[in-house]
Amino acid sequence: MTIPDVSSPPAQPASTPSLTPLAFAPGDGIGPEIMAATLRILAAAGARIDPYEVAVGQQVYLGGVSSGVAPSAWDTLRQTGVLLKGPITTPQGGGYKSVNVTLRKALGLYANVRPARAYAPFVATHHPAMDLVIVRENEEDLYAGIEHRQTDEVYQCLKLVTRDGCERVVRYAFEYARAHGRRRVTAMTKDNIMKLTDGLFHRVFDEVAAEYPDLQADHMIVDIGAARLGARPETFDVIVTLNLYGDILSDIASEVSGSVGLGGSANIGASVAMFEAVHGSAPDLAGQDKANPSGLLNAAALMLTHIGQGEVAQRIQNAWLCALEDGLHTADVVGPHTVRQVGTQAFADAVIERLGRLPQHLPAVVGLGNAPAIHVQVSPRPRAVKQLVGTDVFLEWWASDRNPDVLGQQLQGAAEDGWRLDMISNRGVKVWPQGLPETTCADHWRCRFLWQDPAQPVGHAEVLALLARVSALGLDFVKTEHLYTFDGQAGYTAGQGQ
Amino acid sequence: MTIPDVSSPPAQPASTPSLTPLAFAPGDGIGPEIMAATLRILAAAGARIDPYEVAVGQQVYLGGVSSGVAPSAWDTLRQTGVLLKGPITTPQGGGYKSVNVTLRKALGLYANVRPARAYAPFVATHHPAMDLVIVRENEEDLYAGIEHRQTDEVYQCLKLVTRDGCERVVRYAFEYARAHGRRRVTAMTKDNIMKLTDGLFHRVFDEVAAEYPDLQADHMIVDIGAARLGARPETFDVIVTLNLYGDILSDIASEVSGSVGLGGSANIGASVAMFEAVHGSAPDLAGQDKANPSGLLNAAALMLTHIGQGEVAQRIQNAWLCALEDGLHTADVVGPHTVRQVGTQAFADAVIERLGRLPQHLPAVVGLGNAPAIHVQVSPRPRAVKQLVGTDVFLEWWASDRNPDVLGQQLQGAAEDGWRLDMISNRGVKVWPQGLPETTCADHWRCRFLWQDPAQPVGHAEVLALLARVSALGLDFVKTEHLYTFDGQAGYTAGQGQ
Repeated sequence: MTIPDVSSPPAQPASTPSLTPLAFAPGDGIGPEIMAATLRILAAAGARIDPYEVAVGQQVYLGGVSSGVAPSAWDTLRQTGVLLKGPITTPQGGGYKSVNVTLRKALGLYANVRPARAYAPFVATHHPAMDLVIVRENEEDLYAGIEHRQTDEVYQCLKLVTRDGCERVVRYAFEYARAHGRRRVTAMTKDNIMKLTDGLFHRVFDEVAAEYPDLQADHMIVDIGAARLGARPETFDVIVTLNLYGDILSDIASEVSGSVGLGGSANIGASVAMFEAVHGSAPDLAGQDKANPSGLLNAAALMLTHIGQGEVAQRIQNAWLCALEDGLHTADVVGPHTVRQVGTQAFADAVIERLGRLPQHLPAVVGLGNAPAIHVQVSPRPRAVKQLVGTDVFLEWWASDRNPDVLGQQLQGAAEDGWRLDMISNRGVKVWPQGLPETTCADHWRCRFLWQDPAQPVGHAEVLALLARVSALGLDFVKTEHLYTFDGQAGYTAGQGQ
Repeated sequence: MTIPDVSSPPAQPASTPSLTPLAFAPGDGIGPEIMAATLRILAAAGARIDPYEVAVGQQVYLGGVSSGVAPSAWDTLRQTGVLLKGPITTPQGGGYKSVNVTLRKALGLYANVRPARAYAPFVATHHPAMDLVIVRENEEDLYAGIEHRQTDEVYQCLKLVTRDGCERVVRYAFEYARAHGRRRVTAMTKDNIMKLTDGLFHRVFDEVAAEYPDLQADHMIVDIGAARLGARPETFDVIVTLNLYGDILSDIASEVSGSVGLGGSANIGASVAMFEAVHGSAPDLAGQDKANPSGLLNAAALMLTHIGQGEVAQRIQNAWLCALEDGLHTADVVGPHTVRQVGTQAFADAVIERLGRLPQHLPAVVGLGNAPAIHVQVSPRPRAVKQLVGTDVFLEWWASDRNPDVLGQQLQGAAEDGWRLDMISNRGVKVWPQGLPETTCADHWRCRFLWQDPAQPVGHAEVLALLARVSALGLDFVKTEHLYTFDGQAGYTAGQGQ
């Protein structure tokens, strides 16, 4: 266990003497040197932390652990609940898994938080006024990776969204906005198209927003939002969104800020949170005292605020802005405003020397002092009354020139004993009854059967009997989706053209 | 039927005397005046067209047709195969459907084509050199709109991608690139995550690209691609991508070009194609001779190239660039380079006066003369040999503190007669066997059963028997996804952590 120097006098010596234990993983490539620089700055700034080193990364992979996380590291992580992680090199081939994916899944890290700020003129950008944060749902959406090739022609990926998953990340975004002195939270979804899934996210956003009257809240359709973010990022403050959109939006924000290499990010879970630089391990730069520790330092500032030491984070970030302004730049930032090019440790020294100062040109970081630690609690809700009302049966079929009327007539033979064939759609477009001849049909047909007898409840037995009849007609069903109402509201969308 | 003046001498009088019939819909708001201006320019430029007016839009809606497309219009559309459409006002409420959605679905318009070009310094942008085209798949992906709420907590949307759908749009992109003198086609997908669906798009792209050795072809992950597009759009030429990504990317491209109001777009189908401005009907500007006809004119240029009159399109676009350069600007473009603010018809006159000239400051449009009409044919392929090997059964379950081991043990009771329970995942993460205690579990469990007996084929009967046993255990199955191999290759992904 490495214990860095934390003997410097803390900034607020009397009031909160206890130290927060945390895990840190130096990482690979430039990781160890930027971690050393970062921990030196934290100590000098009076961070009240007790850091424990854990084994994560290349040495662990090569030691035979395919996750890259040593068994002993898990215990430390669970005890401390906080990990400051240097960049990791995932070895190619051999079934090695990304440490990030492993930790995100295993520890339920539900929110990814990525600030993107411009530092013009010291870092070139078209958008000098931008200063925003993207809070991205981190576990759900299409990233669940559930894919099926269902017919010769059709491949499917499931987009899954949960009520609690939406609420956790949305609450986190509002709490983060408050804790960091931000004013406005913008949700981005595509709920004009995806009314149930993205609609849920939007609805939860509106519900949660009502509990934060001190913050502005608005919603944008993600295509327009992404365009606005690319062209006018300075108009945003906090953005909260689903996993895939967040993936795209956070890369756009980083790129147009001009400062990809300076960014830090947080991955927040219920009991554990992980903080890291956005950049990679840059093995070719390793050991040369050339790397810029800023990404990890900015991640560490997020971490300090997370553990309730916002005033230390603020001191560090303002000192760091001073170093940038004063033209003390590592090689990656060198430009017309550079006064002196410095190495990793000299840059850390420059930051330490400026602790307590405020930047003169760049806006100072304010409002983090006394920022509360964020705890998100999902509200308990009563379960809705669910009722089975039908089933969508998906067929592979390419007979009879793919004429939907032929299929419709054939399926009528299965629609007995309480079932009615309501419609058939192909790639979402209704093709029976009364389709249009121009609709291009794949070999994949969604056949909606509704239960007709409100007096008699329908259950698994009736669905299985229906499927058996469909099969007896010589038709090949490849999947089903049951149709339910929840508290009387339909839990399914109509076919396009219905 | 309105027949505009097409009596001006055509640019190439002798060689191709026959006129191409086309349908046009003036549209609502500013539609009629920009359509009149556009058709005047087309006639003066020698477009060999025979335009028929069709009834589409507000008057049709208010006449009681909820699609906004008059029955008589369908016949004309089918006969001409080409529609130049003015902007439409969809009335609010009352179940009116967007004309675009109706036409796209009904006519199988599989590719959306949207050029985005900078016209700096005449139109302000950070990216004066950008000149790209986005070709977007237009029928599939999450936009099929198939959504189900499956449990109290979990909502699902299906992302559907077909082999032919990918091939059609990818071939169109390469053919378009050739016809328009472009050099490079870039595919964007997220196939590092979605290996089956986005993987299919990428694979088809690589296959088709090999048939176009005269064009460069590359692939980018869409998050990085979107970021690059926002920050350095001048590095792209033609981009081809799936529906959702294309929606986001085309809005980014438009916005950073600075010329959203000047853009035209094409929607290409097998037998019909539709061309329109990107902007809306702007009812508040209607009838004042203030609107800019450029968006519709640029759409008309796409149309002319589509029908094999690329040399006319080129004449028109170069004359239009001359008018822009000469500072003859409608109100929306007025700025430091404006010499005279003009109205809609005066702007059209300015373009007509400049027919035959080439721009001096802005790059001229070249290479469209003799551009071939684009015909896309999907290659026939033999159907793969499909074999059922298992089924994913999805359960709603929230008993026993959601302990996956309890569920796993219970399900063993159903895994008889040739079936084996392979794994259980929750939101895509494997939770049985050997899950991790920190994984947050929703009430939605994917239980994978594999068929064990290679000697005996498995079919619907065995699946139904399995489901009946699951139901008899008191477990609530809400959907199924069959597992198949195709030509011996698994048509499904493993659970994360498997």
